[in-house]
Amino acid sequence: MPHSSANIRRAVLAQETEVRALFDELRAGSLDAVGPGVTRDTFGAGEQFGYRVIEAHANTMGLEQRYDHAANLFMTLPGRDRSQPRIMMGSHIDSVGNGGNFDGAAGVIAGLVATRALQSLGIAPARDVTTMAIRAEESVWFEVSYIGSRSAFGVLPDGSLDARRRDTGRTLADHMADCGADVDAVRRGDASLSAKDIAAWVEVHIEQAPQLVEAGRPVAIGTGVPGNFRFPEIVIHGAWAHVGLPRRFRHDAVLAASDFALALDDVWKRADAARRPMAFTIGRFFTDAQEHALTKVPGQLTLSLDVRAYDKAHLADLEAEVMAIVKRIETERGVRFDLGKRAAADVAPSNPDLMRALTEAASAIGVPTMPLASPASHDTATFTVAGVPSCMLFVRNENGSHNPYEAMDVPDFLDAASVLTQWLAGAVQS
Amino acid sequence: MPHSSANIRRAVLAQETEVRALFDELRAGSLDAVGPGVTRDTFGAGEQFGYRVIEAHANTMGLEQRYDHAANLFMTLPGRDRSQPRIMMGSHIDSVGNGGNFDGAAGVIAGLVATRALQSLGIAPARDVTTMAIRAEESVWFEVSYIGSRSAFGVLPDGSLDARRRDTGRTLADHMADCGADVDAVRRGDASLSAKDIAAWVEVHIEQAPQLVEAGRPVAIGTGVPGNFRFPEIVIHGAWAHVGLPRRFRHDAVLAASDFALALDDVWKRADAARRPMAFTIGRFFTDAQEHALTKVPGQLTLSLDVRAYDKAHLADLEAEVMAIVKRIETERGVRFDLGKRAAADVAPSNPDLMRALTEAASAIGVPTMPLASPASHDTATFTVAGVPSCMLFVRNENGSHNPYEAMDVPDFLDAASVLTQWLAGAVQS
Repeated sequence: MPHSSANIRRAVLAQETEVRALFDELRAGSLDAVGPGVTRDTFGAGEQFGYRVIEAHANTMGLEQRYDHAANLFMTLPGRDRSQPRIMMGSHIDSVGNGGNFDGAAGVIAGLVATRALQSLGIAPARDVTTMAIRAEESVWFEVSYIGSRSAFGVLPDGSLDARRRDTGRTLADHMADCGADVDAVRRGDASLSAKDIAAWVEVHIEQAPQLVEAGRPVAIGTGVPGNFRFPEIVIHGAWAHVGLPRRFRHDAVLAASDFALALDDVWKRADAARRPMAFTIGRFFTDAQEHALTKVPGQLTLSLDVRAYDKAHLADLEAEVMAIVKRIETERGVRFDLGKRAAADVAPSNPDLMRALTEAASAIGVPTMPLASPASHDTATFTVAGVPSCMLFVRNENGSHNPYEAMDVPDFLDAASVLTQWLAGAVQS
Repeated sequence: MPHSSANIRRAVLAQETEVRALFDELRAGSLDAVGPGVTRDTFGAGEQFGYRVIEAHANTMGLEQRYDHAANLFMTLPGRDRSQPRIMMGSHIDSVGNGGNFDGAAGVIAGLVATRALQSLGIAPARDVTTMAIRAEESVWFEVSYIGSRSAFGVLPDGSLDARRRDTGRTLADHMADCGADVDAVRRGDASLSAKDIAAWVEVHIEQAPQLVEAGRPVAIGTGVPGNFRFPEIVIHGAWAHVGLPRRFRHDAVLAASDFALALDDVWKRADAARRPMAFTIGRFFTDAQEHALTKVPGQLTLSLDVRAYDKAHLADLEAEVMAIVKRIETERGVRFDLGKRAAADVAPSNPDLMRALTEAASAIGVPTMPLASPASHDTATFTVAGVPSCMLFVRNENGSHNPYEAMDVPDFLDAASVLTQWLAGAVQS
């Protein structure tokens, strides 16, 4: 039996040195100019560097390589019957500014490790096995979600190509063209992927919270990607005033905003108590630097809001609660909320059969796992919404992600890659 | 009786055209380049322009003029006995950025109107009558309080000259030198004013709140200038994290800051209910634009705090409350407050005899007044703390100050100038 669990485990663990070297190479070439972290900027020099490293590695493995119209990279080990729906793995290459080395890249490398294990075990897959390196997952740059995966499925929302990168001010269209994408094809909604051609999608990703550290397990089986609604730029309009203004005359934008933030915190506290998983984040929160002063009552504050949950009805309830809070504060504090544009993403539950198969694979190969609802967004949501049976594997990570201090241990990563490979070896039999 | 109340009233009202022209001239020459308001920047081009206008006007009145080592301007109608303690009136010339035309300048013009009325009534004062145009009252520019008046009394705090103007980045010393000040004399603590040489100080100023509008009176007699404590730059350190982090793991700087702001709002609500006048202002409140993002839990927030009250013990209680709130939030939310540097100013109650004399003058001349505790800071505090019998007269103003929409009506201003003149005519008899 050339692919017993023990052999599969060995074929993965044998790649440890290579894996460490690959992560090191990625890190060394994308260190941030200022901070201690890495910056692989979306459709920019950092992401491009990442692609060159991954491409070179796939070359050494002899995989077929293809870039689609959105500059996503597909690395394929051909199957015996190439007309069968393929099995896909992968994640994204980009990072936030001054972020971590593993968020994204680990999922691409895991796909390649599993593929290399098949090769070294001499397993000829019945169908194509493709690792996809996805573009532009980090929405901090263009404030558009899932640019790479949505473009692949031809479902990038209208107008996205005109979004401007926050640092360069240039459009997504221009940045994509720089990286070799066919912008007209993206605009037309051409697709390089179709659900009917994909048997399954599995994305390995570091956990963004220390829940696996807390639980003492290296790997989790994702139960789904939350849906969300977002207001990237809410402006609260109060009234600028002199520090001498008594309380009853003030329309203080800072107090209105604080009231809003704490009211949402209270909503979350109650949801936690009721065990309804959700998250809200006010990532940006600021008075106008051109106007604010030590002795001026602030008349304006800008904030961003991201709210996420795992259940469509819950999400709708939360949005209604947000609107009620806005209404109350407008009345009580004599201010006005300009909510600006709204964005949203559907809830994307994992495929139950795939969750079960991955759980069984973990058990067979001796890696302790647990089911986990992670409140972060992932490209997997695009696959799920398109109708592809999808699931995620999370790797233990103490310090969260989107920061330079991500702490994924390579042995934990190899545990996740082992689970992935054990499952893959079974899945490619037919 | 050449200075009956009726004659005094007429001598003031006769100056209406001249007063309007003077305010218009000031406004026209200091309109903000961008906004609709005026900008008379402290020790900058705007303030200098204001001095040129006032100086030219004092010239037409034949007043003695003198600049001190801090570039404050003294405009004097000489008294019969020049060795007697003088009577002083005035206010400041500078404004906040894109602010109003009256905050400050009205008090200087009121002093000149009262002086001109004495001249036109042929009243030869027994002692010198001096209107002072004070430098640098608006602390938004250098974040140092009462620069002009404290320099005049030789009590500018050590290190103030090294403060940098927020827009130019240049030091106070450099800006003062540009305007003809003798910086070495300021540094040595030389004084151009001494309490023993001043019989009384009265500052006319627009009200910074619509309390007089609410009460339907044109003028108020100030009960005192509040003391304050300030923390111009408090930094709350939480932990930057991924939007996927569950609530129990977060150390969210925005929520900590919101908690702080609302806790202070609650302190003020209770003080209002207990009729203990106070005010707090968080004028600056912002996440770091280099770091913050839609999908990042904010790990840092910077804010400014100004707290003021009319009673030393109350102020001490408030500072203790602030510290207790900080402690509680640090514990509950796992964040750290870096309070930065602290500044403070003493409480400065008005002189009771002077308040009474001004109230009687108002009554004699038929201007309805009321006592008013205005929570704003004024140079009058420097005079009071130095031991000069001091008081303020506030002029009705609907739209607050420090904004382009100050709404002082000239008839209300002339009411305040009439009260001032009525009092002055009595005070210069001996």
